[in-house]
Amino acid sequence: MSNKPTLHTSLSPALLHLYDLSSSIVVIIDVFRATSTIAAALHNGAKCVIPVDSVPKAIEISKSIGGIAAGERDGMIAEGLQHGNSPIEYNREFIEGKTLILTTTNGTRLLQMAMDNNADTIISGSFPNLSAVCDFLKSENKNVVLGCAGWKDRFNLEDTLFAGAVINRVKKQFTIHCDSSLMAEAMYDKNKKDLVGFAPNLTHYHRLVERFGLIEDIKYCLTPDVANVLPVYNDGKLVVK
Amino acid sequence: MSNKPTLHTSLSPALLHLYDLSSSIVVIIDVFRATSTIAAALHNGAKCVIPVDSVPKAIEISKSIGGIAAGERDGMIAEGLQHGNSPIEYNREFIEGKTLILTTTNGTRLLQMAMDNNADTIISGSFPNLSAVCDFLKSENKNVVLGCAGWKDRFNLEDTLFAGAVINRVKKQFTIHCDSSLMAEAMYDKNKKDLVGFAPNLTHYHRLVERFGLIEDIKYCLTPDVANVLPVYNDGKLVVK
Repeated sequence: MSNKPTLHTSLSPALLHLYDLSSSIVVIIDVFRATSTIAAALHNGAKCVIPVDSVPKAIEISKSIGGIAAGERDGMIAEGLQHGNSPIEYNREFIEGKTLILTTTNGTRLLQMAMDNNADTIISGSFPNLSAVCDFLKSENKNVVLGCAGWKDRFNLEDTLFAGAVINRVKKQFTIHCDSSLMAEAMYDKNKKDLVGFAPNLTHYHRLVERFGLIEDIKYCLTPDVANVLPVYNDGKLVVK
Repeated sequence: MSNKPTLHTSLSPALLHLYDLSSSIVVIIDVFRATSTIAAALHNGAKCVIPVDSVPKAIEISKSIGGIAAGERDGMIAEGLQHGNSPIEYNREFIEGKTLILTTTNGTRLLQMAMDNNADTIISGSFPNLSAVCDFLKSENKNVVLGCAGWKDRFNLEDTLFAGAVINRVKKQFTIHCDSSLMAEAMYDKNKKDLVGFAPNLTHYHRLVERFGLIEDIKYCLTPDVANVLPVYNDGKLVVK
């Protein structure tokens, strides 16, 4: 047997409990758009991102400590909030030096589940910070679980494509006996040359683009390394490592 | 909007509750090996297959009504039984005219879940009865959920490849907005020319072949239409429609 650490991919939050998180780095993946937004905000100088599971909690925290309360439900800016889950909203002029308190449909919930399952380390991953994630995983020599946020527990392809991109870059350093990971890398390999061209096939694309016109968000979320920081979760906050 | 019925793919029993089964034909898919064994036994003249969830229940039923109690746990013939879950065990000489009472790790459990979720119709599918499944789905004009049994709730590729084979043949007659189905068809399309050659990549292959030497089972389970009957579940039994 090889002594390399293991790597598994969890295709939905409803499958996360099948993996041993207590000795693993868990990568939270919500490509459209929570983890892309987290990377963008931190890359553009946000002090930290506080992920929360409800709109009232986001508002309460922003009132008590200051900061921007933001989030979406079903793809739209959540009722009661002025800011949503669009990464391009969080440019340097707007977010530098501020705290972002973020609530989303899938990504922040998955992060909470990773916490509840005693993950050793939690980071967030997306194409905008692909290299930072891969460099970290290669340097740590620990087991890894790539956790796809999906859409309300359903499988989605964009999170899987990101998992595949990570696997493609780090696989030599891991033992991978996991059909989900094999599939993720194959789907990435097949579509890597034109992720934006592939995007109209995705169910979530229709939700975001046809209903809300968010094509610029889609392009940003599929562009590697435009916000290449490593968000690490600690003590209720995501901060740049 | 199109008036075609919908088709979705559930990649794990842990995701089955996300789909509306009450107006759907549910295809139970456990390629290695329960649904291949069911097709083989019925094709070779078994009177019916009674899927049950435990070894004691299989033994009890075989004592009370006669028939072959069979099944596996973790890939091996289950303790207390003389017959396992190998499709090639159920040739015509052995099984013709008999009742097979079968208990398996994943497939029979998924079938029970489809029952509990009030599926409109339950059939079982595998490469050995691929055409029979596709012909039935095309003829019924009902919504379809392709239910992959996986391995202890984990995603597996062989069930997904079969889902992809079905989608490849029936998709024109369905509305498909489902990333799982899109992925399944893409994975099938990529590997369809040599499924047996692809098999050593699968985690389950290692379980069956390296531990138990079941390469002939693998080949049988990946060969289309060698047991081309349609098993329909009704009143506790799978019978040929």
